Amino acid sequence: MKKLLFCLLAAASAGVFAQEPKNPIKHLFLFIGDGMSVPQRMTAEEYSRKAGRGPLAMNSMPYTATTRTCSFDSLVTDSAAAATAIACGQKTKNHYSGVDPDGKPLYSSAYFAKKAGYKVGIISTVTITHATPAGFYAHRNNRGDYYGIALDLADSGFDFFAGGGLDVTDKSSKAHKQYADCGDAYEYAKSKGYRLVTTKSEFLALKPSDGKVLTKFTNKALDNAIDADGSQPTLAELVRKGIEMLDCEKGFFMMAEGGRIDWAGHSNDAATNLRDVLALDDAVKVALEFQEKHPDDTLIVVTGDHETGGMSMGFAGTGYALYMDRLDNQTMSAGAFGDKVNKLFEANPGLKFEDVKPLVTKAFGFKFEGDQKEDPMVLTKEELADIKKAFDHDVEFHKSKVEENAKYDGEKRYLFGNACRLVMSHKCGIGWSSGAHTAMPVLTTAKGANSELFSGFIENTDIAKKMKSFYEL
Amino acid sequence: MKKLLFCLLAAASAGVFAQEPKNPIKHLFLFIGDGMSVPQRMTAEEYSRKAGRGPLAMNSMPYTATTRTCSFDSLVTDSAAAATAIACGQKTKNHYSGVDPDGKPLYSSAYFAKKAGYKVGIISTVTITHATPAGFYAHRNNRGDYYGIALDLADSGFDFFAGGGLDVTDKSSKAHKQYADCGDAYEYAKSKGYRLVTTKSEFLALKPSDGKVLTKFTNKALDNAIDADGSQPTLAELVRKGIEMLDCEKGFFMMAEGGRIDWAGHSNDAATNLRDVLALDDAVKVALEFQEKHPDDTLIVVTGDHETGGMSMGFAGTGYALYMDRLDNQTMSAGAFGDKVNKLFEANPGLKFEDVKPLVTKAFGFKFEGDQKEDPMVLTKEELADIKKAFDHDVEFHKSKVEENAKYDGEKRYLFGNACRLVMSHKCGIGWSSGAHTAMPVLTTAKGANSELFSGFIENTDIAKKMKSFYEL
Repeated sequence: MKKLLFCLLAAASAGVFAQEPKNPIKHLFLFIGDGMSVPQRMTAEEYSRKAGRGPLAMNSMPYTATTRTCSFDSLVTDSAAAATAIACGQKTKNHYSGVDPDGKPLYSSAYFAKKAGYKVGIISTVTITHATPAGFYAHRNNRGDYYGIALDLADSGFDFFAGGGLDVTDKSSKAHKQYADCGDAYEYAKSKGYRLVTTKSEFLALKPSDGKVLTKFTNKALDNAIDADGSQPTLAELVRKGIEMLDCEKGFFMMAEGGRIDWAGHSNDAATNLRDVLALDDAVKVALEFQEKHPDDTLIVVTGDHETGGMSMGFAGTGYALYMDRLDNQTMSAGAFGDKVNKLFEANPGLKFEDVKPLVTKAFGFKFEGDQKEDPMVLTKEELADIKKAFDHDVEFHKSKVEENAKYDGEKRYLFGNACRLVMSHKCGIGWSSGAHTAMPVLTTAKGANSELFSGFIENTDIAKKMKSFYEL
Repeated sequence: MKKLLFCLLAAASAGVFAQEPKNPIKHLFLFIGDGMSVPQRMTAEEYSRKAGRGPLAMNSMPYTATTRTCSFDSLVTDSAAAATAIACGQKTKNHYSGVDPDGKPLYSSAYFAKKAGYKVGIISTVTITHATPAGFYAHRNNRGDYYGIALDLADSGFDFFAGGGLDVTDKSSKAHKQYADCGDAYEYAKSKGYRLVTTKSEFLALKPSDGKVLTKFTNKALDNAIDADGSQPTLAELVRKGIEMLDCEKGFFMMAEGGRIDWAGHSNDAATNLRDVLALDDAVKVALEFQEKHPDDTLIVVTGDHETGGMSMGFAGTGYALYMDRLDNQTMSAGAFGDKVNKLFEANPGLKFEDVKPLVTKAFGFKFEGDQKEDPMVLTKEELADIKKAFDHDVEFHKSKVEENAKYDGEKRYLFGNACRLVMSHKCGIGWSSGAHTAMPVLTTAKGANSELFSGFIENTDIAKKMKSFYEL
């Protein structure tokens, strides 16, 4: 017996097990954090540990694989090509969703599962036609073709679409104009047998006998976790209901995306970023609860599609110190803060810096009075100068937007929110190198049946290949 | 049989195998890249792939573990606390080498191996008394106490110390002053039975019968790989000779460090950084060759002690594009470039920007004439302004250093080399967030006997614990 054990372990270490699944899979969970790589997972973890809540569930799985993310045409992938790779197993061009570099349709692990008789659920906190979910059901060479992607969604026959809306109300886009005579995409989905669910209470009351589901809590993305007011389901609630709706004799495939992690990465908004990672982790915990009851045939995989922001826990200004607890002071996303500032501008075109100070304190916990040595949330002279300068810029920019024929040569975007969130990152010791995606590999972790397949260095396409193989058994 | 296999796999996925080694280990290689985390390994890999040389050997191992690096007193570790954790299995304070937070001695996996009768080799490209190697044999609450660490080295009885020197000629340091009456540390090592090897040819001619070895090719660190002129052994050559010297009936433990990766990270010098990662990878390949001949009882583990620089493959200025091949243009480390510029200053105090242009072109491949759109190595107006400004600063700074009673209020360090290496990083799409260490986890990869122990999320202390357990069998 001991000798056999050694022999099997030797086989495992030689990569034999990495080639083919050994256990039949009945329940497959694939969690994707958009823009979530090692820095995002680890920043959220250190924040969680500092708050006494210990490591993340997604970081406590027995197998980890470092996962290369490059697309067909760039070392730095976009979310569409990354989702296509993770879902369908083939590298494609940036901006392509569920098609190969020649534009030919590709078929995802979700499609394979559906074909094999499993129920399929697709969940996202951003619009359900966005790049990551689309990779699992759409076939479009333009990720911005939301209307076409919405049609593919309705045609997929998948059982459960939940989270953000179809994002089809903006008919001014170039992609949309090709559908001059098109009808309402939500109505089309209904014609294909989908029950449209518009409120949280209606959603939470859903029963498996209610059939195929598409949610429309909003036409757009769900709120960032940090901005949530309870009116929309959390990602964990979406997953819990998904399990209830999909659980059946044959089993199910579920993809659940934390989509706004990426958006907070693009805007270098650390507190918002990590709270969306924690929201995803809460959803992973729901799957783990289920897995404990079905340990032999349930696999949970958690990955990301790419890194966003060149994030790191370390900033020149704070040297070897990190202050993760200072992130607690931020009470809203930089986006929500910007919206509030804009409303103040609209209400009062002569808005002064003094007028926004209370909002800055409420949003970020920055203090304008006191001794910075005693209270680190007091703004330093340099920090104050940075955010004041950005505010002054926004005053001019806003004027140029509301005044007719206004002359304006400055940067054509609001900068105040940016400046505040950067000060926040720096006060905590978090650094960023980019406002875009990077080519850093992501981390894939796995627990449960066949989880040993997710080890070593892999390509993002390997995730699809391994998952598809479960349905080819 | 099939059922047994499933049962064993289930046990493995439940983490049972992660607790105890199953196979006896005769040959253990531990490679440490100082300041080498995911970004450093992946940047070198993408550079290598772009050059047609494929993935790194260290990134092609069947098991990977994401490894948390925090020290006893900081989320951001220094190399001394990290080495102590990796070597001895206990978190300690930053700056402590081989002692616990109370200053009590800790004993490393190398010590355990030696005690169990194995031969032990310690190799580093930086000084052999530096933080990483010291963690394996020294017991000092001050990593800067090089003389004391050199005494510990000689007292360790380990068989093979190779790479940089003892770094004991600077007797002005506070740490050194406690040894007012001390003798020559090299002589002390000789008195303890070490053969002092000072030339590469002497080193390459060493035979196992020559006994215990300490090299002194230099008192300081070996050259960066990018600056190597062949007069010193490469890291791969050090490892190859180490194997020859240590291979014996009982077996051996070898720790080999790529120490200058970290230094190039501190100075945000991408080309130098990745070439030192590649040099470490060449050394890993030597171990892999050996492992192929001894597959049943050889384990190779490759890790880092921490991340340095907040490096990422992605920079706001280059968006979704990366140009790894442009790094080929850099022919020397920014440090070597700085030394050359200083020599020019010394030879000609009236040095003009025009005078250093040829050196800039030689070192970084930057061109001062031409169309940037046709040749990306032509400096843009902004890039030129950046490096010119840094040069002008250095002119003033240099003056202040050579003129008696000079008044100078500017930044008291040379900036020209910094500016050039930053332009280089940005031309390639590489971003940095810090000049210091970060709290990013590192990657541990493993191949060979018991390599399955290195999976999932681990603490850096787990590496020591697992390794020590091999010698407690």
